[in-house]
Amino acid sequence: MSAHQRPIRLAMVGGGQDAFIGAVHRHAAALDGRYVLVAGALSSTPERSRASGAALGLPPERSYGTWQELLAGERQREDGAEIISVVTPNHLHFPVALAAVQAGFHVICDKPLVPTLKEAQELEAAVRQAGTAFAVTYNYSGYPMIRQAREMVRQGRLGDVRKVIVEYHQGWLATRQTGKQAEWRTDPARNGPAGALGDIGTHAEQLATFVSGLALEEVAAELTAFVPGRPLDDDASMLLRFEGGARGVLTVSQIEIGRENDLRLSVFGSAGSLSWRQEDPNHLVYDQLDAPRQILTRGGPGTGEAAGAMTRLPAGHPEAFIEAFANIYRAVADDLAARDRGENITPDYPTVRDGVQGVAFMTRVLESAAGGGVWVSFKGRA
Amino acid sequence: MSAHQRPIRLAMVGGGQDAFIGAVHRHAAALDGRYVLVAGALSSTPERSRASGAALGLPPERSYGTWQELLAGERQREDGAEIISVVTPNHLHFPVALAAVQAGFHVICDKPLVPTLKEAQELEAAVRQAGTAFAVTYNYSGYPMIRQAREMVRQGRLGDVRKVIVEYHQGWLATRQTGKQAEWRTDPARNGPAGALGDIGTHAEQLATFVSGLALEEVAAELTAFVPGRPLDDDASMLLRFEGGARGVLTVSQIEIGRENDLRLSVFGSAGSLSWRQEDPNHLVYDQLDAPRQILTRGGPGTGEAAGAMTRLPAGHPEAFIEAFANIYRAVADDLAARDRGENITPDYPTVRDGVQGVAFMTRVLESAAGGGVWVSFKGRA
Amino acid sequence: MSAHQRPIRLAMVGGGQDAFIGAVHRHAAALDGRYVLVAGALSSTPERSRASGAALGLPPERSYGTWQELLAGERQREDGAEIISVVTPNHLHFPVALAAVQAGFHVICDKPLVPTLKEAQELEAAVRQAGTAFAVTYNYSGYPMIRQAREMVRQGRLGDVRKVIVEYHQGWLATRQTGKQAEWRTDPARNGPAGALGDIGTHAEQLATFVSGLALEEVAAELTAFVPGRPLDDDASMLLRFEGGARGVLTVSQIEIGRENDLRLSVFGSAGSLSWRQEDPNHLVYDQLDAPRQILTRGGPGTGEAAGAMTRLPAGHPEAFIEAFANIYRAVADDLAARDRGENITPDYPTVRDGVQGVAFMTRVLESAAGGGVWVSFKGRA
Amino acid sequence: MSAHQRPIRLAMVGGGQDAFIGAVHRHAAALDGRYVLVAGALSSTPERSRASGAALGLPPERSYGTWQELLAGERQREDGAEIISVVTPNHLHFPVALAAVQAGFHVICDKPLVPTLKEAQELEAAVRQAGTAFAVTYNYSGYPMIRQAREMVRQGRLGDVRKVIVEYHQGWLATRQTGKQAEWRTDPARNGPAGALGDIGTHAEQLATFVSGLALEEVAAELTAFVPGRPLDDDASMLLRFEGGARGVLTVSQIEIGRENDLRLSVFGSAGSLSWRQEDPNHLVYDQLDAPRQILTRGGPGTGEAAGAMTRLPAGHPEAFIEAFANIYRAVADDLAARDRGENITPDYPTVRDGVQGVAFMTRVLESAAGGGVWVSFKGRA
Repeated sequence: MSAHQRPIRLAMVGGGQDAFIGAVHRHAAALDGRYVLVAGALSSTPERSRASGAALGLPPERSYGTWQELLAGERQREDGAEIISVVTPNHLHFPVALAAVQAGFHVICDKPLVPTLKEAQELEAAVRQAGTAFAVTYNYSGYPMIRQAREMVRQGRLGDVRKVIVEYHQGWLATRQTGKQAEWRTDPARNGPAGALGDIGTHAEQLATFVSGLALEEVAAELTAFVPGRPLDDDASMLLRFEGGARGVLTVSQIEIGRENDLRLSVFGSAGSLSWRQEDPNHLVYDQLDAPRQILTRGGPGTGEAAGAMTRLPAGHPEAFIEAFANIYRAVADDLAARDRGENITPDYPTVRDGVQGVAFMTRVLESAAGGGVWVSFKGRA
Repeated sequence: MSAHQRPIRLAMVGGGQDAFIGAVHRHAAALDGRYVLVAGALSSTPERSRASGAALGLPPERSYGTWQELLAGERQREDGAEIISVVTPNHLHFPVALAAVQAGFHVICDKPLVPTLKEAQELEAAVRQAGTAFAVTYNYSGYPMIRQAREMVRQGRLGDVRKVIVEYHQGWLATRQTGKQAEWRTDPARNGPAGALGDIGTHAEQLATFVSGLALEEVAAELTAFVPGRPLDDDASMLLRFEGGARGVLTVSQIEIGRENDLRLSVFGSAGSLSWRQEDPNHLVYDQLDAPRQILTRGGPGTGEAAGAMTRLPAGHPEAFIEAFANIYRAVADDLAARDRGENITPDYPTVRDGVQGVAFMTRVLESAAGGGVWVSFKGRA
Repeated sequence: MSAHQRPIRLAMVGGGQDAFIGAVHRHAAALDGRYVLVAGALSSTPERSRASGAALGLPPERSYGTWQELLAGERQREDGAEIISVVTPNHLHFPVALAAVQAGFHVICDKPLVPTLKEAQELEAAVRQAGTAFAVTYNYSGYPMIRQAREMVRQGRLGDVRKVIVEYHQGWLATRQTGKQAEWRTDPARNGPAGALGDIGTHAEQLATFVSGLALEEVAAELTAFVPGRPLDDDASMLLRFEGGARGVLTVSQIEIGRENDLRLSVFGSAGSLSWRQEDPNHLVYDQLDAPRQILTRGGPGTGEAAGAMTRLPAGHPEAFIEAFANIYRAVADDLAARDRGENITPDYPTVRDGVQGVAFMTRVLESAAGGGVWVSFKGRA
Repeated sequence: MSAHQRPIRLAMVGGGQDAFIGAVHRHAAALDGRYVLVAGALSSTPERSRASGAALGLPPERSYGTWQELLAGERQREDGAEIISVVTPNHLHFPVALAAVQAGFHVICDKPLVPTLKEAQELEAAVRQAGTAFAVTYNYSGYPMIRQAREMVRQGRLGDVRKVIVEYHQGWLATRQTGKQAEWRTDPARNGPAGALGDIGTHAEQLATFVSGLALEEVAAELTAFVPGRPLDDDASMLLRFEGGARGVLTVSQIEIGRENDLRLSVFGSAGSLSWRQEDPNHLVYDQLDAPRQILTRGGPGTGEAAGAMTRLPAGHPEAFIEAFANIYRAVADDLAARDRGENITPDYPTVRDGVQGVAFMTRVLESAAGGGVWVSFKGRA
């Protein structure tokens, strides 16, 4: 709504009428008035694309039947889209994002970035060559108290990080679900080779490394498909070894009945600890040696600049999922505004590099699981 | 961002650069892409109004120096604002809202509506005469799980309501604060005669009656100004008698150190109970006779249509303050869209009637406190 | 089990086989090995008394048919009981306790002490004359974190106490219950004139004054019997005025479906606040001006001597209801041991004085309610 | 205190004046009046043993200087101890327990049972031969809601168990601690070869298998000593494979700053899930497919016989660590009482078999860790 700068012209590929994540991207883009949706290729068939576009108020000529038409059409317009949000099922991330980058568009792409490391590296190279902005919506890293956690780790307030526990509990795939979301996410052709691992394991990995600041060195993983007949893992647990000797546990699942979107992170250091839960995102538990537990609140006393920059409301006025997602969009808008001014700023959002890292993670985990849970190294690879 | 209908043209009075609530209104209006901000008279001086307007990207000619100029200017334009958000300090609600209504604008006005019952009734009469839409931002009633609670009460799932406890705990005025927010809210000239009572007591009263469906009959109240030298109450506690024999307790405070925005509601009936907390808004505790406690979640199993209509995200993806606020704005947009289509729908947002009820509440409570905490009746009055 | 001193010989009046509170007293007495149960008049009929005694392993000759026989019998024995636990329905507290005191026994008596202020004063005078130890089992004040709270108030860590909120939520009498417990507690002849007020309101009042250190000055109260046909209040809410200007809210209920034994206390001062819940008794929430919230844990960092003296286990190994109750018994044992050594120590348990204060509270509240919720003063009375 | 049967004569080896766990055993034995402490060899030197005995009120002739003297002395007395509680540092469990069993005493022994599988099997054989009762104080399985959880799994209310997550978070060894507890627990000579793994990992393993009813088949483990110079692991994480295809994650630590005694268990099945936390032991979270979450409370609606048998107080009156521990002691007392009556009942407490299983677990985990985290099988072994 506010518009310190002129709104950025946004086009969307995917995200038609009953897509969950497309609507989230639109709310996130809208929240701060920094974007205006100008075009879309919103569904997998031209008819449904156009219907979705109409429902969103897009002019018919910019409600494209295919993403190829969208890129071509918007490229030609003087008032064409500047940035493309790629919110399709996973298997389309690569062709759409690559073509968009090569056509000079900035891109905001959902995670996991692409199915294979080869594609990830190709995409990263294309971004480097094009010099465009490229964000991957690791949206949980947009939460203010996650920024607070990272800042505290960086400030040494935990001492040396020793152990990281990251969990992502969901239950919505505990049975053989039908419905659009469930179908493509359990179909290797559209989802890629990693089920829960790709969908939520990559979020967990990104959050753990984002906050701890530590790179992974080795993993031993167990992937399971608990629901009979399911071709992809619906549960993944693993032991992690980080650079410098820190250790970790990561467990994610989509068959844990009753768990909704229960992403949790704990980081334990030699001088203090932090714990955070996505379903209670405005609080951060901070423990120090021989001192009472502290509960830091978003906007409250003891929170610093990093969280403050992601905060819209005073303490006690909860912010949540959309606001965190919008922080990614806002950071991209800030980057584009800086580029407009001829400035070069460090992106305060997850980039294609983070996306590649997530694909490397998936790849190594699949390798470990294929070997029966053996230890697999990240070093000297990817 | 989405725009099923053409965006509604919105102007804002108040809400300049460092105003908390103005920014909230803008986020709320933006979230669903149903409004476009076209004009403003954003601050108390013409210079600051214009600076705020520029920062928000308003064209200079629609960044007005005074609200009178705004109403006059927008009225004349073919593309003029259709609705005015009144987000000034309380003492200006009455003149601005009245003039806006009389000029034929729809209005969204902050609470408490106005300082006195006389003004409230005059405003209500004006709205009735003009036939315009008039919303009062009792935003907490926009939370999905509050709608769920009201629906469950209406469905008889609590049996007869017996007792209502509503609490609103804040601590930010525990000392003699400075800062814009604290100053006008503790100044009778700008805030009106009710301190914490007006600012948050009215929210508590509205929530209690909104969910329980019961009208107040009598109150015995204690108002206190704990901070030395403060001319307005910063704490209010009272016993309530509702129609039909239900009883209630209401306590609100702005001097409870450590409490941020801790609004809580419990409703106890002859067959079940409900409890809700604003700082954990996606959950609703439901207890039935001789059955285990249930935790209902927004978007989760067991929630009904009323909550569903206010919900944007799946369970576990938390929604919060801005989304609840946006539900008021969206309901107003739905009303205006229906009016555009020539339809007449029951407003699904708090109206001028609710605003008047809040002023009546303040008035009776002030009367009780002035009498030393005597019981005062609502019956046959206002 | 441990026995630093010789065990104290205990007799029990009331507390037969299906009595809830009698079993609690026995666990509490047993926990630290400081008492040995030597005699009982456990039920309201001689037959059931003897059966209960046999079940508890009492020798037949010390399993008395009536409390009069018990007092007479034990008085004559060289190895007779030294202390009498009075755990009968309320209407027997007065005659049993008075006779026991006059016969020279120490007494541990349940609350509420007696039904009327006249009886309370008579009992207090008898205790003063006899010089015996007399404890009233306001057991919630035995919780370590309640002691911690009181110590922090005394140390000035909250500044001046401004506001006290005490709540006691139960739901077990939400319908017309049968069963021994429910029957006598809703029968004025056996329970006395105050229903929920007497049973749990007195606990709430004691906790509030124990922790805050403030005496009550005035009360305006609303008593309600929500269950049709119930002759006693099952719900009580009131506004409180303390000495020195502090204000309070007290609400208790036995008809709040789903609430088990949900006693809560919050104390707000000019420099800090404390909150505690009986159902999570090992934690104490401490808020200070402009600092992150602290969670103090029993046995953990930041807890002091007062809590430490009531603590048996390290932090994280929860203690609960029986342990808190046992703290009262242990403090009485310490008093008797000191008396054995010829020393005179300040009782670290609630005494007959506290019991009288509770009866005065009940009396004034009944008076307020009888007047329709008028303000009633405690000053210059009782 | 109550004594339906004559009290059982108990002697204690270890548990002198500043030992944490000895005091816990004494409280647990005392709580229900089923035991009387008659003898002890309480410390590692005769002088300190006798001083501790005196402090506990033991007669000098039964306050032995060594455990050998105790066994010999009590064996000769007509009123000698019937059961020996072994609460020494771990390295003494084996010789003391073995000698006690061989001398015909019943035994209650702390965990981990013994350091090696060979000793464990030797001890188990001795118990089988002697026919005595032998309990291992896996006290967490004495919690009522853990019994409730096991009963629900057995009733099929979770469907097939798919995944088990068990965590045990402590932080008290985050630095190089001094103090008696810390010293022997980090000394391989007194503690055995497994640090955190033995101390709390065995609790976690026992709880997971006790509730799930599933045997372990394979483990891949990572043991770490984070504190420089510590000769034993202070952190252990592992992936588990259970019989029938269930999978698990176990992580325990004693270096997680701020965590006190945070043992957590979640069991996920094809039809429902359960979650429990030791620091909030009176609640059990129960989730079913497509139904709102239920919170079961100890003593509350929906809890069954298994929990009921372990429950002393009504719902809302919390029970905790000592009560759970006392449930083990009480079950042993019930076993001995049945033996007295010539009956043979299934022990409702963890036996030497469970102790052996724990040692097998430790052994396999050490083996996995020694191999760099390789998968190690339990099948066909131990």
